[in-house]
Parts: sequence; structure tokens; C-alpha cells
Amino acid sequence: MVYTVEIHEKPELNNPILIEGLPGIGFVANIAALHLINELKAKRFAEIVSGSFQDFAATTKDGRINSPLNELYYHRRGEGKRDLIIWYGNSQALTTFGQYELCGKVLDIVEELGCRTVISIGGFKKDEVQPVPGIYTAATDEETVKEALDLGTKIMVGHIFGIAGLLIGMGRLRNLNGFALLVDTLGMYPDANATRYALAALGKYLDLEVDVSKLDAAAETTKKVLESFGLVRNIVEEKKKEEDQLRWFI
Amino acid sequence: MVYTVEIHEKPELNNPILIEGLPGIGFVANIAALHLINELKAKRFAEIVSGSFQDFAATTKDGRINSPLNELYYHRRGEGKRDLIIWYGNSQALTTFGQYELCGKVLDIVEELGCRTVISIGGFKKDEVQPVPGIYTAATDEETVKEALDLGTKIMVGHIFGIAGLLIGMGRLRNLNGFALLVDTLGMYPDANATRYALAALGKYLDLEVDVSKLDAAAETTKKVLESFGLVRNIVEEKKKEEDQLRWFI
Amino acid sequence: MVYTVEIHEKPELNNPILIEGLPGIGFVANIAALHLINELKAKRFAEIVSGSFQDFAATTKDGRINSPLNELYYHRRGEGKRDLIIWYGNSQALTTFGQYELCGKVLDIVEELGCRTVISIGGFKKDEVQPVPGIYTAATDEETVKEALDLGTKIMVGHIFGIAGLLIGMGRLRNLNGFALLVDTLGMYPDANATRYALAALGKYLDLEVDVSKLDAAAETTKKVLESFGLVRNIVEEKKKEEDQLRWFI
Amino acid sequence: MVYTVEIHEKPELNNPILIEGLPGIGFVANIAALHLINELKAKRFAEIVSGSFQDFAATTKDGRINSPLNELYYHRRGEGKRDLIIWYGNSQALTTFGQYELCGKVLDIVEELGCRTVISIGGFKKDEVQPVPGIYTAATDEETVKEALDLGTKIMVGHIFGIAGLLIGMGRLRNLNGFALLVDTLGMYPDANATRYALAALGKYLDLEVDVSKLDAAAETTKKVLESFGLVRNIVEEKKKEEDQLRWFI
Repeated sequence: MVYTVEIHEKPELNNPILIEGLPGIGFVANIAALHLINELKAKRFAEIVSGSFQDFAATTKDGRINSPLNELYYHRRGEGKRDLIIWYGNSQALTTFGQYELCGKVLDIVEELGCRTVISIGGFKKDEVQPVPGIYTAATDEETVKEALDLGTKIMVGHIFGIAGLLIGMGRLRNLNGFALLVDTLGMYPDANATRYALAALGKYLDLEVDVSKLDAAAETTKKVLESFGLVRNIVEEKKKEEDQLRWFI
Repeated sequence: MVYTVEIHEKPELNNPILIEGLPGIGFVANIAALHLINELKAKRFAEIVSGSFQDFAATTKDGRINSPLNELYYHRRGEGKRDLIIWYGNSQALTTFGQYELCGKVLDIVEELGCRTVISIGGFKKDEVQPVPGIYTAATDEETVKEALDLGTKIMVGHIFGIAGLLIGMGRLRNLNGFALLVDTLGMYPDANATRYALAALGKYLDLEVDVSKLDAAAETTKKVLESFGLVRNIVEEKKKEEDQLRWFI
Repeated sequence: MVYTVEIHEKPELNNPILIEGLPGIGFVANIAALHLINELKAKRFAEIVSGSFQDFAATTKDGRINSPLNELYYHRRGEGKRDLIIWYGNSQALTTFGQYELCGKVLDIVEELGCRTVISIGGFKKDEVQPVPGIYTAATDEETVKEALDLGTKIMVGHIFGIAGLLIGMGRLRNLNGFALLVDTLGMYPDANATRYALAALGKYLDLEVDVSKLDAAAETTKKVLESFGLVRNIVEEKKKEEDQLRWFI
Repeated sequence: MVYTVEIHEKPELNNPILIEGLPGIGFVANIAALHLINELKAKRFAEIVSGSFQDFAATTKDGRINSPLNELYYHRRGEGKRDLIIWYGNSQALTTFGQYELCGKVLDIVEELGCRTVISIGGFKKDEVQPVPGIYTAATDEETVKEALDLGTKIMVGHIFGIAGLLIGMGRLRNLNGFALLVDTLGMYPDANATRYALAALGKYLDLEVDVSKLDAAAETTKKVLESFGLVRNIVEEKKKEEDQLRWFI
């Protein structure tokens, strides 16, 4: 399949934990990952382009190209604490098959760096959400279920779609441990409040103090990426149609 | 393509026979395979994940992840009898192409273990079914047709879809012998009665006494897996749609 | 991609010509190929299964499995005449991509046997057809166009779909020469009359006398394969739908 | 995946620039590339066929086959000037995945020849276009944005679809620099006027005088290729449907 993987550095890491932060429901994972990268000054070490991403380029206000991309960052914590790998990006894959492939590729990279624990974050779409949203979990094994419940989560009932579910499922098969953190959200906009609760649970697990005072800024940036990639959504579809028609004339 | 194959053990087997038991019409094969695994205390030696499975994770009641997965089990019978390999799973592949790939991958594994005979089990959907359901067969070669007819089956007329058909067709091309066992079923629920007749015919072929007193338990377990994977079917489709829409906003 | 290619023999051939005979409009190529194989007692040397074929098995009247399959036959002619390779099968690939792949795979095999000339046969669908149907051609190069026109053909205007077009196009890129023979046909049934004219033109090119007295038998056999593979077409589609629904319950 | 790449020559080139000229909106890139190839007497050195192109062959007036194809040409300029590689063809890929693959394949080839700069040309569809059309740009990096703006372009706002966008996006990831030139066009026919302005901006960047007196001839040739490949568009779709139906009968 078509993959371009640029690995700029193979960092030595202490028993690292992978935190998945791709765009999804409520953009909870995406905001959380961006915020962590900013707060922790995490360092980008890998870029991944998949042939299953959308085939277009968005533009930035200053004329640069912004393509569908996934990135991996690392953060060393010292003091014997476990290091972090953060999986950030502006796209999931368009197809089921592409999702499996993307997830497998990232697991290949992080396993080589010694990663044995994976955490995925997501929104759990609800029609109504309380100010203190519910947090749900599902994990690779009994012991990790317990650890995740100790963070104040409840057991998830149902399905976990996309990369958030695949990562835990594929992780389990590869004998990694890990869990998903899913927060109640209306799901239609970048949900800073849901992200705050996701980060609180995550911070407790990681023994990591996360300053959330700039969380709204991360949500705002996420919204801007949205605008550049997707608020033109209808235009995309219409242009696509036109282009498809034109292809017939070629 | 994307495959994760974990082979935990390469067992030495005596001229083994592959029995296919993936979910399909009436879940006949799936119940039969699960029952055999339980009764024979068959040992799991391989796990297979395909990028053509669905890209989600289901959850169990106690918070663990249950992903689309295929598994291979073996059972040694001793006394000069042929050993068994059982192909069990909670999913077939989503695409035609994925089905070919999955079937080819499993054949690669079992052929390396010396397997030269394959049996697929399935339901044959009928609008009405007699208490003693009809059993149909089709085989790789004339001699195997005879052997299968000797089990009290009739010749199948029509098409055999999915893995049940592919396995016999691909087996034939690889010079294996084998046959399909297809039992009349209404097809809409896990059909323990149809499975009983499939196991009876199979047992006769294998010279294997199968205690079917716990067959209802296997059907019940199969039904529970169904519930976790699919009774939320409409929710799946609706969520998928929402998620797809959201992707446009990324 | 998923390919199972069984090459039983690598025959030494004298400057062989590939004749394509897969099912298509009017089944002209398919009948012609089958008839040539029978008349020339051509010998099968390769079998090809593609993951882009349909994922089912049809059954024969006597209980054997009949799967989607492509085959290659050879016929040695002696007397300094060029030998023949005949590409026969019951299926083209389901997808555009699969068609390219299948065609490339066959070209790989025959080029290794020294083949530098390819001929594809096809029907040219018309609403009305004269008793003596028109024959059209298109070729890889100017000289071959002339040779094909000398057979009594006219220049094809328009598109040649499927393997019949791909073979000549991909052949050209690989610096092979060759041409397509397309005969007027109503296209909805195995057209023995159109095939007769295709074989006449082909025979002239090959300096090969083909006894067409048994051509109706070849058309009849082709029709039977049709019946086993496709007259159950609506049943196929309905069953497929049911099965797809069932998959959701797994 | 299925690729046939014929590289006839690996030319030694002086810091070459890739100019993309595949068919797209207004066929601006396609006309520009054909015109440059003619004017500069550029030499073809590579041909590429992708399994993601359409699976048919068109015919020429004189009976030859004209298949979906991409080609690479080079032009040496001497006098210390940077050489050119021109990417011409009659097709983009049919699928998102195929587009990524095609673009990656071409980048592999040209990077091996020392290419570090890529330019894509395109039409920017408008409902109304001024006699002097607007030209827009987006680039891989800040410095290249400046260079492109110096050509009299404005910053593109929105998405760049197909190969024109992918090339710049994938180029950026591979640390190439480059930009897109997008000219206002109604988009429904080969737009010689838009192409004239694209070539003017391109010529300024390349320090290349392009005689555009024969531009209408290039537009006319492009239109003829259109006619052979696509004015029969509805026929294609109808035939395709018929053929698909027939496949069921095989």
C-alpha cells in the first residue's frame, strides 16, 4: 500500500505510553493531544502520510499547503517516570482497510521504541451532556480495566469506532495493554469541556499535572484546522463532483 | 495487505483435517466450531486479524475489548486417527477481496501443518425447514463427492457464498480434497437444531463421537457474541454515518 | 494482492501468439476459445485465481465445485508455424484494478514463454445485426493495423472495454504487437454465429483451418456454464443481501 | 499494486524542476504541458500505467490503440539553467488511493534524477471569468510562497484537488519545495486563454520564453484526445452497465 513514513529521530524512551489523539467525535482526542504537545513541548519525530487519506491539499492563510498528515511526538519525563508518545494528526483514514493499515503502521513504529501501553481518547456522542460529563472505558485485559475504573470511569457498553477502538483491539492482539477513555459530548464542535475531563483522568493515570488554562486556545486552534479542512465541506463535495464529471471528458 | 497473524505454536499433527466455522447463515458453522472446541478442549495456536474486518471494537460486560478476530485451534486424537484443525472466529471479511485473502492465508498456515483435507459448514437458507433438516454437499472431486453423499447428504444445487464456498474452491485448486456441509435453516438466528445435524454428519465422517448435550450452551454463547457485535446493528450504522459526517469537519 | 497461480508446465513454444477468450459481450471470445481448445486438443498448463473474482463457488450437476477461474492452454503446431496460447476462463475480474492486475499477470506468464503477439476477441454490441456481421479491429501499431484490416475487418471507432481492450493497450506498452477482433452481436446470449466469423478471421491470420461443425456444441457448453454461474443471478443478489444483513448480527 | 513503469532512459539533468500537466479543470495543465513538450521538443523517457486508471482502450482514427497513460519528458536547457521534467498524460487515477500511489511513483522517479522542485498547474473553476483571469498559488514553504507571489499570483484560499494538490503536499513532506499555479477558468472546455496566463507566470519563474503562437493547436489536440477518450462518455457508462449485467450471466 502507499505509505510515506518519515522518521526524523529514533528517541530512546523509558517504557513509553502511546496516547492517540486523532480527530473524532467532539474532537476530544485531537484537542487533548494538541494541548499536551504544546504544554509538554513534545518533540515531533515522525510524519505519516497514507494513501487512504483524502486526496487534496488545504491552504493556510499565508499561502502554505496543509495536507492530510499524522505525526508522532515524544516527551521525556525523567525521574523514573514513563515517557510519552503522542499520536497527533488532522485525518483518520477514509476506508476501513486504511484504518487498520494506519493503526498497524503506528504500532510498528512505537513498539520498536519499546512501547507496551496504548491509550486512546474519544468522545461518546450523547444528545444531552451534563456539566460534569461521564467518562467510559474499555481495556485490553482485566487488570487494566481495574486501573482505568480507578480513574473514575465507568465500563463502556457498545462499540468503539475508528482508530480509538482499533488501537486497543490491535494492541491486545499484540500483547500490549491499554484502554480507551471516552467522554460524553454532543460531538458537533471541538469540545473543550469534555477534553478537560479526559485530560484529568489521563493525568491521574500518568501521574502528570496538566495545566489546562490554555485548553481553550488548543480548542480554538483545532477549530481553525477544522475550518481550513472541513468547513468548506460542501464545496469539497460539489467540486469533487465537477471534477469527476470532467474526468469523463479526458 | 494488512494482516496480523500470531502463530503461538506450530503443532505436529497427524494428517489433519481443517473444519471451517465462521459466522454465516444460521450460524451453523459458528456454533458447531465453538461446540467442538469446547468438547474437544481444542488448543488455540493462531490468531488472525485482517484489514478487511470491520474497524471497531466491541466491549464485553466486564470492560474488556472484543475485536473482529479469527482463530485456529488444533485437537490431537491419537489412535492413528486424523487430527483436527478448527477455524473459528467472530467475523468474515467485509469485501470479496478480503475473503479471498483471508481464505488463502488460512490455507497457507494449515497446508504447512500438513493439512490436505478441508471441510466447510454452512446454513442453506430456506423459508420453511423440517424438524429433520436436509443436508447438502458439494466437493472438490468425484471421490470426495461419494464420501460426502455416504454421510446422508444430497447434492447441492446452486451457489455457496462466502468462505464456505471459497474454501472448497481454493482447496480444489491447491489439490486438496474436501467438501461443504450445508444444512437447511431459516437462517435468522443461531440454529442449534441445524447444527446438531451438521455435527452428526461431520462426526460420521471423522469417526468422532460428539456429545451434543451442551450444544444449546454453545448456541447461547454464539448468540451473546452476536448481541455484543451486532444486535446494536442500527446504532452502528447511525453512528458510522455521524462519524463520516464528522470526518468532513476535520 | 491475492493471486493463486499454478503453473503445471513451462512449455517450450515457437514464437507463440496469445489468444484471449474470457466471457464478455455475446460471449464470442469465450465460445471461440473453448472451441479452439477442444478442436486443437490444447493442453492446460496454468490456472489463475484472483482475489478480484466473485467470492462464491458454483456446483456442477454431479456435486463438484466450479469456482471462478482463468486458465492458460498451449497448442504446438509444428511445420515452422507459430504456436498458440489460449487464455480461457469463466470470469473477468470484478474491479477495474483487478482487471489490470489479471491482465498484467497473464502477460508476465506468456512473455516468459516468448510470446510477443496478443489477440483479443470480443463482441461489439449492436441493436441489430446482419447475418454476416461486421468485424472491427484496433491494433498496437500501424503495421499490425494493416495486417488486421487485411483479414476483412474495419477500423473500430470508440472504446474497447474490459480485458479485450486492456490486453492490447498493455501489450503495446510492453512493446508487444497485437490486435482486437470485435464482431457485431446482440450481446445477450452466447452468439455462435458471431463466433464463426471471429474464428474465420482469426484462422486466416493464423493460417489455421478450424472445423466449425462443432461450434454449436461449444456455444451450448458455454451456455451451461452460464446457467451454473449466472442464470441464478437474481438469487445471487438477493442471497448476498441477506448474507450482508446477517453479517451485521455476527 | 499494479504498476507498469517503463523507463527508457535515465537522463543526467541539472537541478531539474518537475512540471505537472495532467488533465483537470479547464485542462489548463494538460494544454500547457503538451505545448511545452512541442515547443521545447522535450524527450519522453518514461511511461507509466496504473491499475487505477480506467480499464478500457480508446482507438485512434487510423486504428491504433490509445490507452490511459502517463508520460515523463525531459528538456535540457544548458547555460547553467535548471532543466525541466514534464509530467504529461491523458488520465488521473480513478481512486483517492490511486492518486496517492501515482503521485508517489512519479516523485520516486524524479527525485532519483535529482529533482527538488515541483510545480503543479490547474484551473480554478469560476462561474464567470475576466479576460485577464486571476492566478492563485499555494506553496510548500514561506520562501516559495514569496517567489510564487512575485509572479503576480494571489494566495489561494480553499482546497486544491487531485494531483495538483497532492503533488505539492507530498512534495512538502519529502522536503521538496514547489507551488501550484491555478488560473480562473469556466472549466468545461480546454481553456487556451487560461493556459496562456499559466504559461506566462511559469515562464517568468523558469526564465523561459515560451512562444504561445501555437497554443491553440495544443488546445485543439487536447480537445481531440478528449473526444477520443471522453466525448463518448455516456456511451461508456451505458456500455459499462450492460457489460456489468452480462458479467452476472457468465
